[in-house]
Amino acid sequence: MLLSKIIDLIKKGNSGFISSVINEDIDIKSAASLENASNNEITFLEENNKIRDFIFTANISAIIVGKNELLIEEIKKRKASIITVENPRIAFAEVLSVFETKFERKKGFDDSANISSTSVIGRDCYVGPNVFIGENTTIGSNNYIFPGVVISENVEIGDNNILFANCVIYQNTKIKNNCIINSNTVIGSEGFGFVPQDGKWIKMPQTGGVVLNNEVEIGTNCCVDRPAVGFTEIGEGTKIDNLVQIGHGVNIGRNCAFAAQVGIAGGAVIGDGVILAGQVGVNNRVKVGNNVIASSKCGIHCDINDGEVISGFPAMQNKSWLRSSSIFKKLPELAKKLRQLDKK
Amino acid sequence: MLLSKIIDLIKKGNSGFISSVINEDIDIKSAASLENASNNEITFLEENNKIRDFIFTANISAIIVGKNELLIEEIKKRKASIITVENPRIAFAEVLSVFETKFERKKGFDDSANISSTSVIGRDCYVGPNVFIGENTTIGSNNYIFPGVVISENVEIGDNNILFANCVIYQNTKIKNNCIINSNTVIGSEGFGFVPQDGKWIKMPQTGGVVLNNEVEIGTNCCVDRPAVGFTEIGEGTKIDNLVQIGHGVNIGRNCAFAAQVGIAGGAVIGDGVILAGQVGVNNRVKVGNNVIASSKCGIHCDINDGEVISGFPAMQNKSWLRSSSIFKKLPELAKKLRQLDKK
Amino acid sequence: MLLSKIIDLIKKGNSGFISSVINEDIDIKSAASLENASNNEITFLEENNKIRDFIFTANISAIIVGKNELLIEEIKKRKASIITVENPRIAFAEVLSVFETKFERKKGFDDSANISSTSVIGRDCYVGPNVFIGENTTIGSNNYIFPGVVISENVEIGDNNILFANCVIYQNTKIKNNCIINSNTVIGSEGFGFVPQDGKWIKMPQTGGVVLNNEVEIGTNCCVDRPAVGFTEIGEGTKIDNLVQIGHGVNIGRNCAFAAQVGIAGGAVIGDGVILAGQVGVNNRVKVGNNVIASSKCGIHCDINDGEVISGFPAMQNKSWLRSSSIFKKLPELAKKLRQLDKK
Repeated sequence: MLLSKIIDLIKKGNSGFISSVINEDIDIKSAASLENASNNEITFLEENNKIRDFIFTANISAIIVGKNELLIEEIKKRKASIITVENPRIAFAEVLSVFETKFERKKGFDDSANISSTSVIGRDCYVGPNVFIGENTTIGSNNYIFPGVVISENVEIGDNNILFANCVIYQNTKIKNNCIINSNTVIGSEGFGFVPQDGKWIKMPQTGGVVLNNEVEIGTNCCVDRPAVGFTEIGEGTKIDNLVQIGHGVNIGRNCAFAAQVGIAGGAVIGDGVILAGQVGVNNRVKVGNNVIASSKCGIHCDINDGEVISGFPAMQNKSWLRSSSIFKKLPELAKKLRQLDKK
Repeated sequence: MLLSKIIDLIKKGNSGFISSVINEDIDIKSAASLENASNNEITFLEENNKIRDFIFTANISAIIVGKNELLIEEIKKRKASIITVENPRIAFAEVLSVFETKFERKKGFDDSANISSTSVIGRDCYVGPNVFIGENTTIGSNNYIFPGVVISENVEIGDNNILFANCVIYQNTKIKNNCIINSNTVIGSEGFGFVPQDGKWIKMPQTGGVVLNNEVEIGTNCCVDRPAVGFTEIGEGTKIDNLVQIGHGVNIGRNCAFAAQVGIAGGAVIGDGVILAGQVGVNNRVKVGNNVIASSKCGIHCDINDGEVISGFPAMQNKSWLRSSSIFKKLPELAKKLRQLDKK
Repeated sequence: MLLSKIIDLIKKGNSGFISSVINEDIDIKSAASLENASNNEITFLEENNKIRDFIFTANISAIIVGKNELLIEEIKKRKASIITVENPRIAFAEVLSVFETKFERKKGFDDSANISSTSVIGRDCYVGPNVFIGENTTIGSNNYIFPGVVISENVEIGDNNILFANCVIYQNTKIKNNCIINSNTVIGSEGFGFVPQDGKWIKMPQTGGVVLNNEVEIGTNCCVDRPAVGFTEIGEGTKIDNLVQIGHGVNIGRNCAFAAQVGIAGGAVIGDGVILAGQVGVNNRVKVGNNVIASSKCGIHCDINDGEVISGFPAMQNKSWLRSSSIFKKLPELAKKLRQLDKK
């Protein structure tokens, strides 16, 4: 696609186009990261110091950048075409969607799919090989169900969802619209509910279900459990990475983002816009306020107010944790100095 | 079901019935958590302060509670029927099993199941679509094998087990009776055994197997590896949540409970009745005594005596960890004070 | 197999044979760990104190040991046959491969496999029941693809690879030769790339792929994501345990070993020969040098130089962490002493 066409596309997009300088209206063949860019590729510059250095070494034909006069001057010296926007990542996402390999979208039911006669499937769906769909399940239109997916009885799936290969959806799950469930993820398995009695564990039946609201995306090898009563619910627009555990009865707000290997224990309540970095854990029944950010490996053992930025275990304010952690390294010196003072 | 019938059921159960007061013998339609309870639902009160407050706001028709005179007085004011028992959770579990939706239990082998002619399957089993069962495998009676399960050669499965969709059982695995393996869990995959030589990793063949004793339950997306020689073994009645790693040659006692994302490294020996909270890690060959409780994210790097309650990393006694953690937050002040004293 | 034959095998192997003393040339039936060894079994002694004590109690017929005169004297008293080598683990691995149950290696395509007519599969491959292979995929010779595996479009697989049951390989993945992918692992799923805009998450298309070089082995329930552009790459000879997350665009060197539940965030660069113990986390875009060793639960938040041995979170030198951790336990005393000094 000609560079000038790509610029037209960015102008119509949501990245906040500011200006462009075309060095040569070349045919852009693909997009690349800054460190790997070569001729006839378009790239972009993140606001990230490590990457920024590649400007001086990379082979740049065309680059999307934010407003940064110094950088733009530097790039101009290299005779690259420059597209300046408010949000370079958004512009790059728009460009990538042009170059993404689009496979032909299949429709219809594979012969080997096993679909209960009591289930209903809407129009324009694809149901791949070896898919199993149990009784009393309702599936809307335009869903894409990849090979090996297993959907139990009594599931409700709306429109425009993608269920990737080998994922499993248990009974009483409601998936609304425009959701993506990645491979080998399990939604609606029974919660870990056991009551101790006489040294053994008595099972608490898990009769509830799971609700995934619109635009929820869940990564690979995740688990979302159903509770004893009521629903485990994930709010609209929330995105979840791989290997994440969502316990029974957890309630997650809208537009959250959870990185890989996060674990949320049963009954926890997470607000809107919460960001949890990798390997964060949230204890049972804890309430995490709106727009909280927890850094990686943070252990959230008690309720957290709206807007807090937290770290460490037990979780504390990030700034406080950074200070304490820097002193942790010096504990041997501190202890030594204390012994010396004590002797005086 | 009439409330009076439910009370009869609780009297016959194991929760330790004490007394009941029926405000009105209504028809109970379902069970609900306290915060969501509405008319014609039965609920229960956990010994949990957060939930307790809902007594003043919830719409309670009938409630199961423990012995707590103050609470019972409060509930009486609200004209709810009250059932008092020693263990409200057990009573609620018994009531839930009444309201649990029971799907018709299928029997027989689906046409698409692929079962080796050298394997033997007992009576009253269900083998779902696309199940694969390899050579020389023996399966007892009354087992329920959901779609997409893969069972390798040389596996022994007893009676009354449930294997949920898409789980995988490798060779040399013995599953006794009344076990539940949830979806996408892998039992008996080869242990991570590599020996360093000349900067490369030489594979140690993993010729052993895995034994799951009676009443073991394992969550979704878990891994239980087989060892080089001998067996990885999980004791009777032990319950394991989702995304848990059990390394090669691990030996786990009876009636343990491990929360999600726990990892147990190769050769560790875990006693009976051990409780590991979420994201706990246990190092190679460590011995953890009976009835040890480890709080979330604890890292157990050395042997632990019976009955210890431990936290933190490296693991220490929980009380000690709580004290040290509370001082960790104040390290900047402490360091400042020490500098001041040093200057004097 | 006669003990003398086993000794011949070890002599021809790579463990560095030194000497052997045959007490009786018995028929060795199998191999066992030291604690479980019985008559007609061969065992070996690791350089590990816990195990070493079993020499005094175990029933040893034949044992492989390293050069340790004191131990050898002790074993001689017990009338066991002794094989002395430089590396007992390597010798034991060689012996185990003799006793490993070899199942008949199947060839050909199962009737229920669903293979696109536009894909090409080399000679001597096995494609098991319910396997799905998408369009434009190329598979070399001598590959073993177990039941339920799903391979998307546009995948390249070399020779001599094993894909265990129910694993999923997404588009744009290149698997070279002699690799093993264990059950339920997902390779090439889309990276967790979202850009915040107006309180929502905009998806960054993930158009890249994944490259697994020769002799890579990946455990069960792992995730290796593809990036927006370019490749996520794992170097030759690297071995990865279960439940490991490899984020989009990560680059991993040769001959690394990662234990279970390790998580590597997007864009991180890991050198050669790096060892990460269980539950270690590596932050976005961090660079970890060659031959770094990180102990369990370590959180690597910044670049690490070649050869460092690190622990804790934030990661620090292992020796420093051990000292600080030992003082962490004593923080209450230290704080008390400081208060006392302050009062004086």
